[in-house]
Amino acid sequence: MSAASSGRLLIVPSPLDFGCDEQIDLTEVIPLGTLRQAAALKNWVCENAKTTRAYLKRIDAVVPMACAIQSIQITELPRQVHKLGDHDGQFDARHFLEAALAGEDIGLVSEAGMPAVADPGSSVVRAAHALGLTVLPLVGPVSLLLALAASGLNGQNFAFHGYLPTDGAARAQRLKQLESDALQRGQTSLFIETPYRNLATYQAAIDTLKPTTRLSISSGLTLSTGKSLTLTVSQWRQRPVPVGGRTPAIFGVGR
Amino acid sequence: MSAASSGRLLIVPSPLDFGCDEQIDLTEVIPLGTLRQAAALKNWVCENAKTTRAYLKRIDAVVPMACAIQSIQITELPRQVHKLGDHDGQFDARHFLEAALAGEDIGLVSEAGMPAVADPGSSVVRAAHALGLTVLPLVGPVSLLLALAASGLNGQNFAFHGYLPTDGAARAQRLKQLESDALQRGQTSLFIETPYRNLATYQAAIDTLKPTTRLSISSGLTLSTGKSLTLTVSQWRQRPVPVGGRTPAIFGVGR
Repeated sequence: MSAASSGRLLIVPSPLDFGCDEQIDLTEVIPLGTLRQAAALKNWVCENAKTTRAYLKRIDAVVPMACAIQSIQITELPRQVHKLGDHDGQFDARHFLEAALAGEDIGLVSEAGMPAVADPGSSVVRAAHALGLTVLPLVGPVSLLLALAASGLNGQNFAFHGYLPTDGAARAQRLKQLESDALQRGQTSLFIETPYRNLATYQAAIDTLKPTTRLSISSGLTLSTGKSLTLTVSQWRQRPVPVGGRTPAIFGVGR
Repeated sequence: MSAASSGRLLIVPSPLDFGCDEQIDLTEVIPLGTLRQAAALKNWVCENAKTTRAYLKRIDAVVPMACAIQSIQITELPRQVHKLGDHDGQFDARHFLEAALAGEDIGLVSEAGMPAVADPGSSVVRAAHALGLTVLPLVGPVSLLLALAASGLNGQNFAFHGYLPTDGAARAQRLKQLESDALQRGQTSLFIETPYRNLATYQAAIDTLKPTTRLSISSGLTLSTGKSLTLTVSQWRQRPVPVGGRTPAIFGVGR
């Protein structure tokens, strides 16, 4: 049970421009309330200390940090957690939360978007619940949900599946299964792809899915190059290839 | 195909305080970028014109509107669309987008959170794609995703199921199915409940699910009364009932 004197775990979203040429003005995509709460934190858990420090500098330029950035405690999650996935509940992250037990709030941040949603961080949130700490999610960009809203596909019944298999036969089988979920149960399927496999995944989708199935593709959301388009598979087949090899894409399959 | 001179459809999120005693400061939860883009719009499609006008007044107090609120064109979706659901793709909303065909941007807004995600609006987005208009989703609060991040449950594989059946036997059967998805496939299940059924749904969950299954409950997210807690079913059974009859709750089931 949480002592009244314990610190909290704040889940702090970050902009979606990680690794992009374009750097967005933070106030475009992060509420001032989120920036204010982030600027007050002296302890962070993250994927990468260097990029976290760069994010804190960007925050500081909008809302001055409560203390000097070099004095802020930044702890990286172990490489195996963010490389191999932080989704199976196996990693015990309780020792990352000692500052909260001592009464200080801790921020959890990932490289882009919302920690613990299609990104590492759930082990830290799980540990906070195990320790009885208050968990406070802050508002910011979540690429998955921007893509879902912009797709026009069913947003009352949907599933996110992460990445598809990379093997061609397994990927085609998976696409057929997701299409069946969409057509028979009305469940929209969302999945993501790394830039260098965008084209292969797109090609597999238009080769495998039925002509009347709807396929939504979003990329670069919140960036000036951002786009979201939903067409039937037969319509996609008549157009130039819509994905490049530099920007992560989010795919949606629906009826 | 979109003419270069066509207007766009902007998907504009709203705060999560609809129907609540507390009114949040908009800058806490909506990025200034979203407020700036919303303040420039002269055409809106919404669930309810009165609450939309109230939201526009709140925006105007932060970022002055481009034109007087009484001169803004506000069009309500038909009652059957937002009462019976806007998820099956049956409703043709193209006639709501005439202003965009004439070159003006249109905002889409719902009563709380992100339009077209667990809320009406997908028919309007679908119509925009059918007309070749650019669809631009803006950043703001999405209660579902805040709840998922705060749950510590698997955020790499999850499904949102809307509401559970209201019949007791059907609800229990559904809960068992969702638990099986969680335990066997690692898929987190999210569902929502209206305030007056919170208690019945909570009771069904702790009566039906296995003692070691994790149950997450979030309510009042982004409000001062907001809370998110994830415990095993056996831990919940030893605590006072965590849900009241006034605030919508989001439930998560995972392993």
